[in-house]
Amino acid sequence: MSFKKILYGAAYYYEYLPYDRLDKDIEMMLEANINVVRIGESTWSTYEPEDGVFDFSTLDKVLDAMNQAGISVIVGTPTYAIPSWLSKKYPEVMVQVDGHRKPYGARQIFDISSPAFLRYAERIIRKMVSHVARHPAVIGYQVDNETKYYGTSSKNVQQGFVQFIKKEFNNDLDKFNKEFGLDYWSNRINSWEDFPSMDGTINGSLQAEFDRYRRELVNQYLKWQVELVAEYRLSDQFITHNFDFEWRGYSFGIQPEVDHFKASESLDYAGVDVYHPSRKHLTGAEISFAGDEMRSLKHDNYLVLETQAQAFKQQVPYPGQLRQLAFSHIASGANMVEYWHWHSIHNSAETFWKGILSHDFQPNPVYDEVVETGKQFKQLSQHIVNLKVTADVAFLVSNQSLSAIQNFPFSDKRNYNDAFRLLYDEFYKLNVRTDIVDEHHIQLDNYRLIVVPALYSVSDIFLSQLNDYVEAGGHVIYTFKSGFTDEHVKVRTDVQPGIISKSIGAHYELFVDPDGCRLVPESQVINPTSDLLLKDWMELLIPDTAEVIASYDDPNWQGYAAITKNTFGKGATIYIGCLPSKEVIHQIIQAFVEEVGIRRTSEDFPIIVKQAINEFGKQITFYFNYSGVVQTTHNSVTGNELIRGSKVSGPLSLEPWGVAIIET
Amino acid sequence: MSFKKILYGAAYYYEYLPYDRLDKDIEMMLEANINVVRIGESTWSTYEPEDGVFDFSTLDKVLDAMNQAGISVIVGTPTYAIPSWLSKKYPEVMVQVDGHRKPYGARQIFDISSPAFLRYAERIIRKMVSHVARHPAVIGYQVDNETKYYGTSSKNVQQGFVQFIKKEFNNDLDKFNKEFGLDYWSNRINSWEDFPSMDGTINGSLQAEFDRYRRELVNQYLKWQVELVAEYRLSDQFITHNFDFEWRGYSFGIQPEVDHFKASESLDYAGVDVYHPSRKHLTGAEISFAGDEMRSLKHDNYLVLETQAQAFKQQVPYPGQLRQLAFSHIASGANMVEYWHWHSIHNSAETFWKGILSHDFQPNPVYDEVVETGKQFKQLSQHIVNLKVTADVAFLVSNQSLSAIQNFPFSDKRNYNDAFRLLYDEFYKLNVRTDIVDEHHIQLDNYRLIVVPALYSVSDIFLSQLNDYVEAGGHVIYTFKSGFTDEHVKVRTDVQPGIISKSIGAHYELFVDPDGCRLVPESQVINPTSDLLLKDWMELLIPDTAEVIASYDDPNWQGYAAITKNTFGKGATIYIGCLPSKEVIHQIIQAFVEEVGIRRTSEDFPIIVKQAINEFGKQITFYFNYSGVVQTTHNSVTGNELIRGSKVSGPLSLEPWGVAIIET
Amino acid sequence: MSFKKILYGAAYYYEYLPYDRLDKDIEMMLEANINVVRIGESTWSTYEPEDGVFDFSTLDKVLDAMNQAGISVIVGTPTYAIPSWLSKKYPEVMVQVDGHRKPYGARQIFDISSPAFLRYAERIIRKMVSHVARHPAVIGYQVDNETKYYGTSSKNVQQGFVQFIKKEFNNDLDKFNKEFGLDYWSNRINSWEDFPSMDGTINGSLQAEFDRYRRELVNQYLKWQVELVAEYRLSDQFITHNFDFEWRGYSFGIQPEVDHFKASESLDYAGVDVYHPSRKHLTGAEISFAGDEMRSLKHDNYLVLETQAQAFKQQVPYPGQLRQLAFSHIASGANMVEYWHWHSIHNSAETFWKGILSHDFQPNPVYDEVVETGKQFKQLSQHIVNLKVTADVAFLVSNQSLSAIQNFPFSDKRNYNDAFRLLYDEFYKLNVRTDIVDEHHIQLDNYRLIVVPALYSVSDIFLSQLNDYVEAGGHVIYTFKSGFTDEHVKVRTDVQPGIISKSIGAHYELFVDPDGCRLVPESQVINPTSDLLLKDWMELLIPDTAEVIASYDDPNWQGYAAITKNTFGKGATIYIGCLPSKEVIHQIIQAFVEEVGIRRTSEDFPIIVKQAINEFGKQITFYFNYSGVVQTTHNSVTGNELIRGSKVSGPLSLEPWGVAIIET
Repeated sequence: MSFKKILYGAAYYYEYLPYDRLDKDIEMMLEANINVVRIGESTWSTYEPEDGVFDFSTLDKVLDAMNQAGISVIVGTPTYAIPSWLSKKYPEVMVQVDGHRKPYGARQIFDISSPAFLRYAERIIRKMVSHVARHPAVIGYQVDNETKYYGTSSKNVQQGFVQFIKKEFNNDLDKFNKEFGLDYWSNRINSWEDFPSMDGTINGSLQAEFDRYRRELVNQYLKWQVELVAEYRLSDQFITHNFDFEWRGYSFGIQPEVDHFKASESLDYAGVDVYHPSRKHLTGAEISFAGDEMRSLKHDNYLVLETQAQAFKQQVPYPGQLRQLAFSHIASGANMVEYWHWHSIHNSAETFWKGILSHDFQPNPVYDEVVETGKQFKQLSQHIVNLKVTADVAFLVSNQSLSAIQNFPFSDKRNYNDAFRLLYDEFYKLNVRTDIVDEHHIQLDNYRLIVVPALYSVSDIFLSQLNDYVEAGGHVIYTFKSGFTDEHVKVRTDVQPGIISKSIGAHYELFVDPDGCRLVPESQVINPTSDLLLKDWMELLIPDTAEVIASYDDPNWQGYAAITKNTFGKGATIYIGCLPSKEVIHQIIQAFVEEVGIRRTSEDFPIIVKQAINEFGKQITFYFNYSGVVQTTHNSVTGNELIRGSKVSGPLSLEPWGVAIIET
Repeated sequence: MSFKKILYGAAYYYEYLPYDRLDKDIEMMLEANINVVRIGESTWSTYEPEDGVFDFSTLDKVLDAMNQAGISVIVGTPTYAIPSWLSKKYPEVMVQVDGHRKPYGARQIFDISSPAFLRYAERIIRKMVSHVARHPAVIGYQVDNETKYYGTSSKNVQQGFVQFIKKEFNNDLDKFNKEFGLDYWSNRINSWEDFPSMDGTINGSLQAEFDRYRRELVNQYLKWQVELVAEYRLSDQFITHNFDFEWRGYSFGIQPEVDHFKASESLDYAGVDVYHPSRKHLTGAEISFAGDEMRSLKHDNYLVLETQAQAFKQQVPYPGQLRQLAFSHIASGANMVEYWHWHSIHNSAETFWKGILSHDFQPNPVYDEVVETGKQFKQLSQHIVNLKVTADVAFLVSNQSLSAIQNFPFSDKRNYNDAFRLLYDEFYKLNVRTDIVDEHHIQLDNYRLIVVPALYSVSDIFLSQLNDYVEAGGHVIYTFKSGFTDEHVKVRTDVQPGIISKSIGAHYELFVDPDGCRLVPESQVINPTSDLLLKDWMELLIPDTAEVIASYDDPNWQGYAAITKNTFGKGATIYIGCLPSKEVIHQIIQAFVEEVGIRRTSEDFPIIVKQAINEFGKQITFYFNYSGVVQTTHNSVTGNELIRGSKVSGPLSLEPWGVAIIET
Repeated sequence: MSFKKILYGAAYYYEYLPYDRLDKDIEMMLEANINVVRIGESTWSTYEPEDGVFDFSTLDKVLDAMNQAGISVIVGTPTYAIPSWLSKKYPEVMVQVDGHRKPYGARQIFDISSPAFLRYAERIIRKMVSHVARHPAVIGYQVDNETKYYGTSSKNVQQGFVQFIKKEFNNDLDKFNKEFGLDYWSNRINSWEDFPSMDGTINGSLQAEFDRYRRELVNQYLKWQVELVAEYRLSDQFITHNFDFEWRGYSFGIQPEVDHFKASESLDYAGVDVYHPSRKHLTGAEISFAGDEMRSLKHDNYLVLETQAQAFKQQVPYPGQLRQLAFSHIASGANMVEYWHWHSIHNSAETFWKGILSHDFQPNPVYDEVVETGKQFKQLSQHIVNLKVTADVAFLVSNQSLSAIQNFPFSDKRNYNDAFRLLYDEFYKLNVRTDIVDEHHIQLDNYRLIVVPALYSVSDIFLSQLNDYVEAGGHVIYTFKSGFTDEHVKVRTDVQPGIISKSIGAHYELFVDPDGCRLVPESQVINPTSDLLLKDWMELLIPDTAEVIASYDDPNWQGYAAITKNTFGKGATIYIGCLPSKEVIHQIIQAFVEEVGIRRTSEDFPIIVKQAINEFGKQITFYFNYSGVVQTTHNSVTGNELIRGSKVSGPLSLEPWGVAIIET
């Protein structure tokens, strides 16, 4: 599937408007060259105000008006927030967490596997999608929104989990008890009827498996919605979903509750929301990792279904940033940039999560920058749509390891995603393009380097494949905790780090808390003036064949290695047995990618460079300045600068929060 | 109503004594010139130990003994703590919060609208008040104590709220849904039967309305008690209630759960408890704001029903402070100062909230200072009773804005009351007397200046009145957030700050987090060496006709104003669009009150000056030294110093924590 | 009872092994001279996988193999973790806390007084103990494990408590109401049927009494298990229990939920688990206080049933520490040192609480040090077994005061145990041996000095005995809060500190928060350059006959004493009315023990010296270096050094974390 143009738009909630201003809104959208809106998600109670009473007249009104203005529409199924009457009539649809049913009010607080919910959700989806499918404005659908399993541990989910385990273990209780270590603290289950509620479990293997099962509920739920929509959609209408990430006030890392890789299989396009720190805290790293993951899901361009306009008080962008951000999404492979949302809302929870327009609906500096960006998108659309992006490096990420580490944390402050981001952000700053894939979908041979943060829970088979990959000439960077447990979070009985010790050329018996310990560089890779303090975790590595890159400064741990490098067959590995500073990680990655021969520009953050091939077969190079002062490239740049429409040659000067796009 | 003398006393709990020492206590009270005690509140289980069994013999004993000693008694209805038998018999009287009924034990954990509770409360009130009403010792009644709604969300309260909304909206569901923005997240209610429990609501408008409804329950409850007591009380006996404030370990600001202004309508006198930091943290600001609010409720003198004697370990006063504090209450307009409490309690929750006497009932330094203070009160009573106080300035406070800002906070550390206190404390330190009134009770024309902190939720009509007031020659200081939403916390669709933009002469489109931003003074009002750092909130003001007092130092927000001043008609306004330091606020207020011509002495904190007119028509001026070192006034002071009984002329020297009272 | 040799071993969980390696494990144990294992506790579901189905075949297998290897076995009753089928069948066995029943999963979450639980526990205990009792490997039993009352407030416990009170007060409700001050806040109970659930109580006296009652449930439960086991055990088999302490990530102080002194009465030996900070945070103080308390329970040697091997990442010992720790236990009077646990576990909650072996079961540095230690233990066994230890000093500790202070804290950061440890640790560092006893078991005359931290709740009689003890020539060090309330946490009506004022020669009326206040030394005992800052609490002492050791620097509290010393009869007391630094406490103790003539070596921490008499009647002196650098004794040391087997004479040099044992 490919797009005819870059889509630029916003979520639009006619339903939430304090007064009807549809025509005025569309007029302002056209002024900004907005060519797409997303509507409908979370509007169930408007379109089915009472059980079985449907009224799509205002939906029609919006579609007609958009169509007339030439603005395309993505229709969301409205299921991620349920009507009050449904909760009142069938209290059992509300999600039950730790034995307590959530009270009605917020979105995303129902049980996604509740039969009563599913019956009603099916009816509104069929009614709504069949109603709009033939409308010429509609170009695609979003099924549900930011779906997760919402912590569900209701009775049907518990029953389903027991059946899931039964099937996985072919009814063999002994094998199940053994693999999950259930004799511990008398948790042994000798009869399936005795399987206790997961609410009280202290077994991390079981909890991680329960999380896996609940992620599978998300997969099934999304697939079910896709199939429903597919019964009605026209052949040129796409189906997508709006994925999101671990939330720390912004998109931080891998989503714990959703297996994006599997969940995206039934979709036509990967869709995503991306939120990030702004102003002086803006680096672009979140846009880049989110884009890399989304692009990797379908090995194709993706849709940014939501990103911030004004957003919260701490996110209102500096002048220039909004335009830069829009191009950043495109440079990562997006074919659409859609803001959340057009207008700020006048009541309820997200009143201060502001849109393009403030509550007064008047033009403002953010809207003005949308206008400017829309104009440039329109002008450059053919040069920057359907960009083909390739990477030499892949991050190997793992929902299962993330879940398992939540149960067995290595830190009271940091989790799996901190390890992921520690490495990701330095690849980003070094301008090395990466894919982001999980172990069930990666084609190892496609990459020169695989980066493996904290792969704590994984099968023997995959670890062997990684060994084989290195032996055949591949390269891997592992961090601490990798290979420690099997796919059921049972610790391996091998000498650690188990199977991968073979390619790493090192092993360990003990791991300790740093408690003030620092690295001692044992190789020129690490600058001795760097920040050498360690955090959270130290494995006391014993090199077998590996070279020691760094050791520890505590005299009690003398003779142990902290970071090692090993040649194995035709390939090589780096093993980082501790949690060093960003600076040290930067140096290790820089040295290794140079040694391995990974493509990268010699520009460094705050200059970010992203390359791709456009539909004319030309190379497009984006240059971003992620700082508030003018930056100039080290290298000479030659080609057509598309935004200004002028030829450039020589070092390229970039305005604060500036962008240049060179076609060659 | 006026008093014959200053009342000085303590709460007295004969019921809690470990042994009978009534005569000894009275002897010590007389030694201290104590002439009033408050008794009875929280003693229900003593006087009705079993359902329907009443025994007031010990109450009689206390009343007789007090009468004989010439000590007056205020009798509290005993309802703010319920007996164990009532909770056991009717568990439904216990307050239900978020679906959970509180277990029996503490005070103030019943549902004030429970019919079972009200039936039993009525009976004990009737029995007790009819029993004591003709006793010559009784001068008045306190209904209940520190009443609040205790978070109630029990079913009857939910039902009552739905009826309240129905009535407010004349049964018009569409209008209700629109005004509260209930289409958002499918919260629309299409039938009153579907109205969900408020426990889960995410709609800030609805939550604020629920809080308003529950404050109305408090009003009704107190009015009901007043009417019950009024059936029995003699014509010269008064009825009061003990109001309290937002509690941060001491009285901090406006009480969120009670609308003092409406709740006080049925009372004869406003009554209050005031607690405050002590020792080196003592400023007197809490006594002042509490007094200003209480005085404003009935435009009359008020009663301090509780204030600290020893209190907690962090509050035990330095020598001299207790006496100073007693006079501070009088200077604010109190006619009574009553300590909580006479003796420290030997068991249960408040064992370490100590009274005048320690657990040993012996004289101690605090008692000794009560003796000294009592002597001075007796001696000066006729000069300082029924003081008439007037103010040129009024603070406009708003329970509704406080509730609304709890739902839409501008800070993770500060709330409405922080904005109120930021301004109040500087008026206090500048020795400008203020009233404190809400929008339903204020007479704007009575004041030269209205101070409006964070008036976030308010009707169009009132804002227009404020505009008219300025146009006609009035003055207003507004802070950020004012005027943003209507009385249902629906954001206005005008350009912000909405209606008041007219008198402010400025507007804004964006607001941002300061994140290190500082003020740039644009007027001589602000000293450039002040602490210019901003906290929490910044509106990017665009002046229309206003003069810019300060702007922001972030180059990205250049050209925006932070604080503005505007002439409108015959009046003027200041708008503070951000949260500056106390120092900056102090300078702005000082300059404006001088310009506007507000009465103030030129003394500054730690010297506090309070003026009033006494019954002889003389002017009484209190001078307080709120510091541990001797202070001398800048101005010459002439008149009779009442405490020492000597004439003074020239600069007045004040001892550490000292007081002087000048009659002229 | 005495032992033939030092026992050295580990907890061993054959049930938790991922594969059968019993023979290999035993081989490695023998290599380490391990001669004892503890098995069985927490294995209920393995040996009774279904209701009424028992299978002890693997238990037999382990016993047989151990016997064949000459390794003794302590069998634990398996009751501290219940099987899933029991919870499923009888949900009422789960503990109910604040009205909520805990979900199944963790250990120690059942109601120890539930009849259904007790019925099933009795059956498994009888089956298991009768099965193993005649096995030659079995030397003793551990009943249950780390038993506590688990916060139980289920209905039967509530009913039991009411009956407990009824009996204590002979059905006299008035007396009960008076003593507990229940008129306060209308809590009066006029009929036993009205007694409210303890879940909501705000009465600290009642809460402390409820805690006392629940500690009594623990006593009864353990006694019941001891009696069950006693029906089967052979005469040479002992019964013990594994006590633990207040847990702050390690053993910190007195156990709030268990009265060790009473609970140990039915046991043959006191048993204990001891966990402590390690590496650079290691001081040995926890081993010492735990040992002192355990030794004092039965006035005999005790068993260390659990202590750390690798443990958590922050506890992995430095080389040398593990051996030092083992000897530290012996020096305190232990006859056994058992690690928790032999092998690290591969699933569930304690996966990262590592044992001697890592998950790979291979030798590692910690195992190697166990091997070395086991060799030395074997070699020295006859010299260091059944050591007789005596002390001149006793700490008087109080579960009741601990509970009471939880309800009436003197600090928001510190509790009773902080006061205990502040004093204990300085005695430890001064190398003064202490016993630790409660008021119901102490023989005052056995000691020259009694140390009494925060004895907040205690009977008149005991305080009088302390007065008599001093008058007759004894010595007491009291801290603040001592003597304040009676045994029902009712504050005394005497002038404080009540009865003991007599021997202290001082009293107080007021207590305050220091808030920056510092000590002023008034005696040469305190070095003026010490850290003089005070924390949390200050009593304003008025000396009657006492000498002032220190006063306060706040001019407002001039003339009050902070620390006093008094001669009373033939003895003397020190009263510490505040919470000074460790440094000040150290100086006060040092001066007083010298004055009183308490035995101590002049060595100081980090050199720790412990003396005892062995079975040959020889004096054994242990020298420990609790630091990472070589230390040399001040004094000349003469005798046989047992570990090296060489004579020494002159100052003794101790390696980092080193040990020397001198026999003389």
